[in-house]
Amino acid sequence: MQELIEALTQRLGPDAVLTGADVTDRYLTDWSSVIGPRPAVVVRPDCTAQVSETMRACSQFGQPVVVQGGLTGLSGGAVPKAGELVLSLERMNRIEEVDTASMTLTAQAGTPLQKVQDAADASGFLFPLDLGARGSCNIGGNISTNAGGNQVLRFGMARNLVLGLEAVLADGTVISAMSKVLKNNSGYDLKQLFIGTEGTLGIVTRAVLRLFPKPKSCCTALVAAQSFADTIRLLQYLGSEFGGSLGKFEVMWASYFDFIITHVNTTRSPFDKQYPVYVLAEIDGASQDADQERFAEALAQAMAEGFVSDAAIAQSERERHSFWSIRDGVAEIGAHTKHSANFDVSVPISRMAEFLARVDRDLNAEFGKATALYFGHIGDNNLHLCAWTGNKSDTQRLYEIVYQATGEFGGSISAEHGIGVLKIPYLKHSRSEAELALMRRLKAALDPKGLLNPGRVVEC
Amino acid sequence: MQELIEALTQRLGPDAVLTGADVTDRYLTDWSSVIGPRPAVVVRPDCTAQVSETMRACSQFGQPVVVQGGLTGLSGGAVPKAGELVLSLERMNRIEEVDTASMTLTAQAGTPLQKVQDAADASGFLFPLDLGARGSCNIGGNISTNAGGNQVLRFGMARNLVLGLEAVLADGTVISAMSKVLKNNSGYDLKQLFIGTEGTLGIVTRAVLRLFPKPKSCCTALVAAQSFADTIRLLQYLGSEFGGSLGKFEVMWASYFDFIITHVNTTRSPFDKQYPVYVLAEIDGASQDADQERFAEALAQAMAEGFVSDAAIAQSERERHSFWSIRDGVAEIGAHTKHSANFDVSVPISRMAEFLARVDRDLNAEFGKATALYFGHIGDNNLHLCAWTGNKSDTQRLYEIVYQATGEFGGSISAEHGIGVLKIPYLKHSRSEAELALMRRLKAALDPKGLLNPGRVVEC
Repeated sequence: MQELIEALTQRLGPDAVLTGADVTDRYLTDWSSVIGPRPAVVVRPDCTAQVSETMRACSQFGQPVVVQGGLTGLSGGAVPKAGELVLSLERMNRIEEVDTASMTLTAQAGTPLQKVQDAADASGFLFPLDLGARGSCNIGGNISTNAGGNQVLRFGMARNLVLGLEAVLADGTVISAMSKVLKNNSGYDLKQLFIGTEGTLGIVTRAVLRLFPKPKSCCTALVAAQSFADTIRLLQYLGSEFGGSLGKFEVMWASYFDFIITHVNTTRSPFDKQYPVYVLAEIDGASQDADQERFAEALAQAMAEGFVSDAAIAQSERERHSFWSIRDGVAEIGAHTKHSANFDVSVPISRMAEFLARVDRDLNAEFGKATALYFGHIGDNNLHLCAWTGNKSDTQRLYEIVYQATGEFGGSISAEHGIGVLKIPYLKHSRSEAELALMRRLKAALDPKGLLNPGRVVEC
Repeated sequence: MQELIEALTQRLGPDAVLTGADVTDRYLTDWSSVIGPRPAVVVRPDCTAQVSETMRACSQFGQPVVVQGGLTGLSGGAVPKAGELVLSLERMNRIEEVDTASMTLTAQAGTPLQKVQDAADASGFLFPLDLGARGSCNIGGNISTNAGGNQVLRFGMARNLVLGLEAVLADGTVISAMSKVLKNNSGYDLKQLFIGTEGTLGIVTRAVLRLFPKPKSCCTALVAAQSFADTIRLLQYLGSEFGGSLGKFEVMWASYFDFIITHVNTTRSPFDKQYPVYVLAEIDGASQDADQERFAEALAQAMAEGFVSDAAIAQSERERHSFWSIRDGVAEIGAHTKHSANFDVSVPISRMAEFLARVDRDLNAEFGKATALYFGHIGDNNLHLCAWTGNKSDTQRLYEIVYQATGEFGGSISAEHGIGVLKIPYLKHSRSEAELALMRRLKAALDPKGLLNPGRVVEC
């Protein structure tokens, strides 16, 4: 590899090439539990031409590459494997333009999500992609993994928020499709090749993102219901009453809600009784008072019709935070459990109740004493599930049982977090052999030497 | 080809194979002006397995195939070329399921769009894809061309409305990815390969479509403004006031508006003066009276702030139709012009005024007496443009002038209607050589023998 390192140092300059002690622990891991070996070199291009140069050299030397952004992934996709060169986008962190008339923002891939959100906000607009890792994750990683997050119901996933994209192929070819237009049927929509493919088909270097007018107000309600079926009726009812202004619809089953209220000191239920299921719903609007009144009327109507049992509308920002603290309590679960298996699956809504009953039955049959908490972005079919027995040796079987059921119910074993390396063994539950073969065919067409993020998502 | 026809007749049954006089004129053309030679055979599979069987046989015999749906395309992509076998999806026209809890509808590719809309409506939901050809076009064609239409601003293009997809590759492989879930990051999103690629990478056979709760009301306003910049301010203002409930935002420049009012007898302006530009805007809602009041207040505020000059809110369904008849008057232009060139381009909003000035200047410099009407789905960056001199010999230059400018302004030469065969010569204005090469690479990877819709979109 020494010859390649020398060539890159010469072509890109010494700032772009880290070796020896300069390769710190930062480059060894992401937010998954996977830790890789220390790479011989970290290359940090500062522009697209340097990314292209790097890949041309790697292609020439047959050098495998792992691409790193903000290193907040949960599936281990950015963790180096032995012999890989690390290509980090950390120096490509500039916002190039905010076009207020077109409502677009152009950024380099290594720009932190929060920096994008802040730049949009400072220009009077909303960039709606939002997730917990916002301060650390990069927009390029958000795009490469098709990130979801808190506002998918109204605005869609990262895929929906990208108008134009630039990417570098394994051989160094630059594909620049930096369109600012929403409607573009001029030939194949090539950006789709690089969104959600986790850097295995190309390296995202720049993007044109969609901005939106900022909502002026936000009304939040915590709602109690007797059954999951009633929450689905509520979802459709609010969709009809508030159309595209229904921003969030989070469901928490009693298993989750009661666990959080019991274990997380800062949370309390606004209800004086317990219920089988709870919904946290938000409406975006233009007038706090008027929207709150409409929201209250709509929920009163739902109570009169029997599919809502109780409801509390946040009357202050403090109360809104109090409601959200129950949903955000997920971050505290780890402190009260041992060896939990955490899931990010999607299941068709029509089969979700049956799916949960099946998982309960299978867990009880296998372990007797397993605990499982259910909650999720149900407006988007996305179920999070946290299960444990307390024994480390059971974790593997917990994963197998839940993924097996997910596949049988027509679900996705990874709704938001991607496949990386950790979920490859389970991909077969969600994808057929013909689909996996087509993924490999695509990979071979775009990266015939298998140099880009090898062994992530698809096995070569 | 006789041997192939016999093999297909034997495997698929005689109903599936038309030859001789049974191959009617219907199979020779679409809504473009292109007419193809009469094909030797039309194969009409009635299920995915038969499509697969057909492609396996064609692959074996090296037989090129053109895929036909509702034959309403405007770019000539479905018109047969000499020697091609026609594969028509016309017998695959069944709606397989409406899943009301998941809000999905599953249909075969040959199902007319209107049949899909009606089935959604009968189940209490909205399928928001809508375009003029709704009675004839098929959902498979809508998906293959990533159709746009009237409701893109709120609901996105066809790409956004497809959750699951099944397609048959050139070699007969069935890729079945009939997911019902919104969030699915389990490996490559293969359906993107078949959406908007005009049948060149695979034949769409079935799809799972997204349904939405029906809006309960719709408020329509016709608005007059002094400049295009003011209409953009209005677009952003309404987006902030009404969020995701802003359903339509159509802009008509005076050139178009005045032409229609003058030439189409059934139209009249609600205003007593003429203005430089007009907007037709619609808000989806839940209560006609309350929404109308909010809409009126918002427009009054815009008038007070000076970016709206006059506004009329439709007070009845009759009045709503009267407003829309001006926009729909586009269908009548042909009766009052000769040899017009019709465009469906996208241009970044921030550059649109400058783009129109450039086109005006170029047309005047070349022809002196050219007429150009401007209108479009400006909320989506989509500009329609109709230009003519009256001389047939000028049409070609009209196309060249406008597409040249579109490329230079970072626009798309085809916003909605695709490339087919007619727009291939102009694709270079919107796409770089590297992009075109990647399209060819994809085509070669998925259809190495070049049998599927050859010569459409990409030149092999």
